[in-house]
Amino acid sequence: MQLIETIRQDLAKIREKRPLVHSITNLVVMNETANAILCLGALPIMAHAKEEVEEMVAMAGALVLNIGTLEPDWIDAMELAGRRANELGIPVILDPVGAGATKLRTDSSKRLMENVKISIVRGNAAEVATLAGLSSEIRGVESISASGMTGTAAREFAAAFKCTVAITGVTDIVSDGKNTARISNGHAMMGKVVGTGCISNVIIASFAAVEPDPFIAATGGLVAFGIAGEMAAKEAPEKPGTFHTELYNALYALDSTTLARLARVDVSTEGGS
Amino acid sequence: MQLIETIRQDLAKIREKRPLVHSITNLVVMNETANAILCLGALPIMAHAKEEVEEMVAMAGALVLNIGTLEPDWIDAMELAGRRANELGIPVILDPVGAGATKLRTDSSKRLMENVKISIVRGNAAEVATLAGLSSEIRGVESISASGMTGTAAREFAAAFKCTVAITGVTDIVSDGKNTARISNGHAMMGKVVGTGCISNVIIASFAAVEPDPFIAATGGLVAFGIAGEMAAKEAPEKPGTFHTELYNALYALDSTTLARLARVDVSTEGGS
Amino acid sequence: MQLIETIRQDLAKIREKRPLVHSITNLVVMNETANAILCLGALPIMAHAKEEVEEMVAMAGALVLNIGTLEPDWIDAMELAGRRANELGIPVILDPVGAGATKLRTDSSKRLMENVKISIVRGNAAEVATLAGLSSEIRGVESISASGMTGTAAREFAAAFKCTVAITGVTDIVSDGKNTARISNGHAMMGKVVGTGCISNVIIASFAAVEPDPFIAATGGLVAFGIAGEMAAKEAPEKPGTFHTELYNALYALDSTTLARLARVDVSTEGGS
Repeated sequence: MQLIETIRQDLAKIREKRPLVHSITNLVVMNETANAILCLGALPIMAHAKEEVEEMVAMAGALVLNIGTLEPDWIDAMELAGRRANELGIPVILDPVGAGATKLRTDSSKRLMENVKISIVRGNAAEVATLAGLSSEIRGVESISASGMTGTAAREFAAAFKCTVAITGVTDIVSDGKNTARISNGHAMMGKVVGTGCISNVIIASFAAVEPDPFIAATGGLVAFGIAGEMAAKEAPEKPGTFHTELYNALYALDSTTLARLARVDVSTEGGS
Repeated sequence: MQLIETIRQDLAKIREKRPLVHSITNLVVMNETANAILCLGALPIMAHAKEEVEEMVAMAGALVLNIGTLEPDWIDAMELAGRRANELGIPVILDPVGAGATKLRTDSSKRLMENVKISIVRGNAAEVATLAGLSSEIRGVESISASGMTGTAAREFAAAFKCTVAITGVTDIVSDGKNTARISNGHAMMGKVVGTGCISNVIIASFAAVEPDPFIAATGGLVAFGIAGEMAAKEAPEKPGTFHTELYNALYALDSTTLARLARVDVSTEGGS
Repeated sequence: MQLIETIRQDLAKIREKRPLVHSITNLVVMNETANAILCLGALPIMAHAKEEVEEMVAMAGALVLNIGTLEPDWIDAMELAGRRANELGIPVILDPVGAGATKLRTDSSKRLMENVKISIVRGNAAEVATLAGLSSEIRGVESISASGMTGTAAREFAAAFKCTVAITGVTDIVSDGKNTARISNGHAMMGKVVGTGCISNVIIASFAAVEPDPFIAATGGLVAFGIAGEMAAKEAPEKPGTFHTELYNALYALDSTTLARLARVDVSTEGGS
């Protein structure tokens, strides 16, 4: 499949070019996401002061906005960095963590969607459903139920918001409004470690830093991270502490042969072949 | 013993109900405490913005207030969340980290004790002694000495402040002013990893989310975590890095049979049987 | 060599006296640096509120200022804590993370150098070159190139700023303007884990808390940490997750015999031995 070949090349490009991935993210996962970026082969930078985010993002290959432990000042910084990234053509990945759980989270997510051109929205079903105006149930930041976040709904969301959307769950769904991918990679142990959703954002961002098509970047990121999860689970079944450690080993060890061998993606194209 | 049987049932309830544990905590242990909650079987949420804490805590089964890297704004948020939890009957666990080390920490702890009905205070001997007005010596956040924090002092503290107090150390002491438990579980390696005190808070909070009696919740949490520490130390004696990883594995693996077999608790009741 | 013998004694002193190391540091490495301090044998404290830093630092044996995720309020707190440390004769270690990458970072580093008497500056070549007014290239916080940060430049920097400078890289360089050490300890895997630079700061600070000569403290810290890196790499070659865990095990296990056996330091003295 051409898609997998492109993803393989993107992985090689990340390691060759070492793009800087700038994250304005939550306090819970800073170290973990930075290490994931480094293990994959890109370079992490965390910077959130309004006084410097515009200057810092200008050096980056991609920008990640994650509202997991948001404060108003941080959202302001995200907006500043996002607008500057837009000016420079740098892709912006948004994780609307906990949208639907509190008004602040829902409003902040919508504000960022309105004021910044988001390249890729990555969330769980409840968070994306909230942004789509559908009903959902969320416990803290955990999706409990979200009615109707099917592939069709993802495609409609992407078309309406003119972005790529990546909804992670047992099967991940990525859509850019025209193409829709269903990714079966990943492992249940990934739900036993805090911040694997946040790590998926930065892996996607690392791909987006070298891959101009956001649909391919999001699909590539989720395939790569899903396979890393499978590799880690082989080393540490039912041991979340050890699994967490093995996840970094796997991101570092992941090579393009393994990626091609283990990738499980189905793509459908609207109106297409 | 009936107490152990209740603790076993509470552990099962945590895993069945998956209560949300809301923490407003320090920047050093956010990831670690969130992972501990998840490994035990509950769901973590970290949220500290004044704009959302009242809404977030309303979904939670317990609230943890931890002043380890306090700022005035965060204490305000703790008070807001704590008052709302009180209105809704949600138990509040306070860790007065470093009370006695600086005026800000002592004052903030006292302010939270006064303005929020605290269900369980969890601290080391020096921190609790400070709140009790006794002399103590603390190096940063490490208790060096605390005169008189015996079981009797714990019982008097609990009676005076109308709360349950849990003082962790070589032997942990829990008292609600009437019942006093001495828990001998735990392992010296727990002192070689940063944040094990903070993890004990969230394990206690997970129990408090399903157990209405704070004395049982605090005792259950410390027994469960102490046993997890013993299990981890078996896998990684004298290796703090590996021990840290094994602690999460142990919290995840801990079952009610092991809990009953390894629990070491003595309870005395004032005026009682 | 007398230097190695002194470093050995300093390591023993850290474990005997357990000095408090106060860090005002970035949000990415708080847990990791605190655990490194604890594993080495000292006691960590993180406190950044302007209301308490002066009181907290008064208890400490050393103060670490690290601008990795700086905000203006944090820089103010760093300056307050630094000035108080100066009054009390407590050594201050500065890591100008990302100086050269943004104006905020360059200006904040220079401001701290001007307003606080810094005992030891620890950075990568690009960061130190920026402070020295030399040209450099930095990607986020990663040194890409820095012209002329040779041993001679380090010596001149130290002489000009009246401090000790420690420049970490493949070979670490430490100079106090008179003596210059080249340290060949360390391992390439240390570059595969986020925050090893930050950990080197706190190991140096732990030595500075017991060793009055900053040149010896900086050299000792880098030798000790470099050897720990070598020990960890033996356990986990090419596995950054496991290597990270083993780094803490190694800091804990490091003994003075191993230190003396593996230390690789060359010292040259201006005007000669």
